[in-house]
Amino acid sequence: MTLPATDARPATLYPLHDDIGSVSLVQSVGDDKMIVNAARVSFGGDSDTPLTARDEKLIGYLLREHHGSPFEHNLITFKVVCPVFVDRQMVRHRVGVSKNEISGRYVEMQERVYVPAQFRQQAKSNRQASVEAGEHLDQAAATETYREAWNAAYTAYTRLLELGVTREQARGVLPQALYTESYYTFNVRSLLHFLALRDHEGAQYETRLYARAMHALAEPLFPVTFAAWAAQHTH
Amino acid sequence: MTLPATDARPATLYPLHDDIGSVSLVQSVGDDKMIVNAARVSFGGDSDTPLTARDEKLIGYLLREHHGSPFEHNLITFKVVCPVFVDRQMVRHRVGVSKNEISGRYVEMQERVYVPAQFRQQAKSNRQASVEAGEHLDQAAATETYREAWNAAYTAYTRLLELGVTREQARGVLPQALYTESYYTFNVRSLLHFLALRDHEGAQYETRLYARAMHALAEPLFPVTFAAWAAQHTH
Amino acid sequence: MTLPATDARPATLYPLHDDIGSVSLVQSVGDDKMIVNAARVSFGGDSDTPLTARDEKLIGYLLREHHGSPFEHNLITFKVVCPVFVDRQMVRHRVGVSKNEISGRYVEMQERVYVPAQFRQQAKSNRQASVEAGEHLDQAAATETYREAWNAAYTAYTRLLELGVTREQARGVLPQALYTESYYTFNVRSLLHFLALRDHEGAQYETRLYARAMHALAEPLFPVTFAAWAAQHTH
Amino acid sequence: MTLPATDARPATLYPLHDDIGSVSLVQSVGDDKMIVNAARVSFGGDSDTPLTARDEKLIGYLLREHHGSPFEHNLITFKVVCPVFVDRQMVRHRVGVSKNEISGRYVEMQERVYVPAQFRQQAKSNRQASVEAGEHLDQAAATETYREAWNAAYTAYTRLLELGVTREQARGVLPQALYTESYYTFNVRSLLHFLALRDHEGAQYETRLYARAMHALAEPLFPVTFAAWAAQHTH
Repeated sequence: MTLPATDARPATLYPLHDDIGSVSLVQSVGDDKMIVNAARVSFGGDSDTPLTARDEKLIGYLLREHHGSPFEHNLITFKVVCPVFVDRQMVRHRVGVSKNEISGRYVEMQERVYVPAQFRQQAKSNRQASVEAGEHLDQAAATETYREAWNAAYTAYTRLLELGVTREQARGVLPQALYTESYYTFNVRSLLHFLALRDHEGAQYETRLYARAMHALAEPLFPVTFAAWAAQHTH
Repeated sequence: MTLPATDARPATLYPLHDDIGSVSLVQSVGDDKMIVNAARVSFGGDSDTPLTARDEKLIGYLLREHHGSPFEHNLITFKVVCPVFVDRQMVRHRVGVSKNEISGRYVEMQERVYVPAQFRQQAKSNRQASVEAGEHLDQAAATETYREAWNAAYTAYTRLLELGVTREQARGVLPQALYTESYYTFNVRSLLHFLALRDHEGAQYETRLYARAMHALAEPLFPVTFAAWAAQHTH
Repeated sequence: MTLPATDARPATLYPLHDDIGSVSLVQSVGDDKMIVNAARVSFGGDSDTPLTARDEKLIGYLLREHHGSPFEHNLITFKVVCPVFVDRQMVRHRVGVSKNEISGRYVEMQERVYVPAQFRQQAKSNRQASVEAGEHLDQAAATETYREAWNAAYTAYTRLLELGVTREQARGVLPQALYTESYYTFNVRSLLHFLALRDHEGAQYETRLYARAMHALAEPLFPVTFAAWAAQHTH
Repeated sequence: MTLPATDARPATLYPLHDDIGSVSLVQSVGDDKMIVNAARVSFGGDSDTPLTARDEKLIGYLLREHHGSPFEHNLITFKVVCPVFVDRQMVRHRVGVSKNEISGRYVEMQERVYVPAQFRQQAKSNRQASVEAGEHLDQAAATETYREAWNAAYTAYTRLLELGVTREQARGVLPQALYTESYYTFNVRSLLHFLALRDHEGAQYETRLYARAMHALAEPLFPVTFAAWAAQHTH
């Protein structure tokens, strides 16, 4: 779906965390039928008839047997506004993913930072994970510490620019909770791979939120594929 | 452009060589403006206004400076019917290219072969190239030899199947001039790279025809980009 | 392992099918420890100590959880001489695979063809698979048909060249059982992916032979990884 | 070159900026001759003889004509310790690049930060570039601002951990000048592409230093290739 020229704003805005973080759908092309056609060309069986029950079974089979290539003839572009530390996890996905991002070399970064609404504590079972914090964690103190750190950082950034320091060096003091923004383009194969790793209980909560937003925006475009995939990943 | 569900046939058919070889446009998404937006996000300058003269200059600049990533947020899918030896050159393009092809393991291959309308001779200057043949080359004899070879091969193929040999082994006798068919999906970056190498005087004539057909089908979708690219590649 | 300059011949030759088909190991770098180090850098735990039992467990964990990136910091280059129809399956693996191949545009193709020692019949259960043939399949007749087809094709090829036809067109009559040769470079991640798909009961027998040869050559270089992978794929 | 098991420390350490930033060579395989062999396989001309003058010309030709695939049959792994903002530029290079990095989810980040020895000012001619600062820029004040920002950030980080906040959230306050460390694996094709973009006058000085260090470490391994490439990029 390419948005009409008369209304090129994102089709859907998916607000996250606060009023800054967001994922929106910019454009897409392809559907479940295109996936089926790409698979059925192997025996000359691609067609322009509507999706059948056999086609739906085929999609389940392709996912189960890891026949990935039929899921590549499509595209979904998101505009993503996320903290730098989330983006650093997203950008690790390279195959079938394209990206362009705002640059702190070109522009003065805006005063936009992610502050967790809820702080979590380290998980005991898993060295990299976190869990809901108990009462011992002073949420107010953590919030205050976070905000003060941001204020100090942004003040230093502004001060460096006033001193005449170039943006590309001054940004070194900005924290990884700073919001950045990017266009991210996936195909269904790369998106499902991304979702499997980043909407996973081992993934960081903040990143999972973004993965789920992408999931929610992509699912209506490829409903049979997402249903088959969900069925295989929950059982 | 996704073709409407009520008319999913290729938007354009581009016949090649004979009445078998063809390239058709299946779907596409993205436009020159999306390329500009992906580039301008670097300074927060993406927008939904129409393409301006400055945008057009920017596209030329991006191409000239090899800033490739803004050209990846789009997609073009072709259905390609081409000889196996052409396909073997196309499939070498891996980055930003997706493919699904008919399989001689699944289906009995049809009696479809490419026979050159004009045979060429080896070039003297370039070990891999060919040039228009002089009168010494007996075109009729070459055509007859080609057709006889095809008849012998297809007869052997049919005979092997009659003997009960599996398709995947029997196809070993089929020639590389056999027609195959595939869905090929590119983005503009990977397509321009493909065109630079395969619509080039060093490329094989038969493959150039396919490259030119893709060029002709893609150009109206990204007119500013193709114009800027052509300007840089002819001077 | 880069072979010493004084003896750059393949370390191991793995003959296949006949005295033509082969896979040989050209060079490699990396080992199980490098895989472990790439994974342990995530907590600053990379080291130059020998592989431990915990390291071995880690490799199993990484494979099981599809943490693929630590398996990319290595390389294995094979020289592969295989029929064109096998190569057409191999070349579909794009990510983490590099290839250079002999070109029928540059050189006159040698009289080298794969003729199955044993013909198989179509499987009933699976449209694309084949099974051992029963007595009804006249092996001698199939062999003769195959060889005659090859003779007719190669005779036509030679005749076209004599007529002055350029190599790149003349090769169109050569069959897909023609031997080609290539350098193929994988990393362990891409190789295991290739093996999972091509040394699989659904894969063509001729291609499985090549996958197994690569497996046999790569396994001693990454013994812990291959053992863990085999354990997870047989149970 | 795989480093011997008895001395697996980096072959060469290339200190950068300060006593923290560094690039070191971990392993490599392939050489100019392997590049030539991958190219010459196209006409069956690969061999184990020493590199000739004709081979050297061939390498120049391949680079000039953008025949990239012969440059992929090799590998160079670096260990890179660099600021996050440099890493964010490096990680954008996806094709032919593999990476594993230390994770702030797993470990408490060390007190290691990049502080510019010399601050630069914004360039007038180029919106994204910087130039040597004039006397008006108070270097001492900038250094102090940078250091204070770091102290505030690291203090907040430590405080959040003391409060019981999980590492993955606490790291949000750490600045982009924080040092991170990664294994980066390239092949010569992807490395030259990286160098063309990142050791370029339009690239950020801090990133250029890293590109140059990689260049210096890789050049002796592929001397003919790097010489040919340099000749084509300076004229």
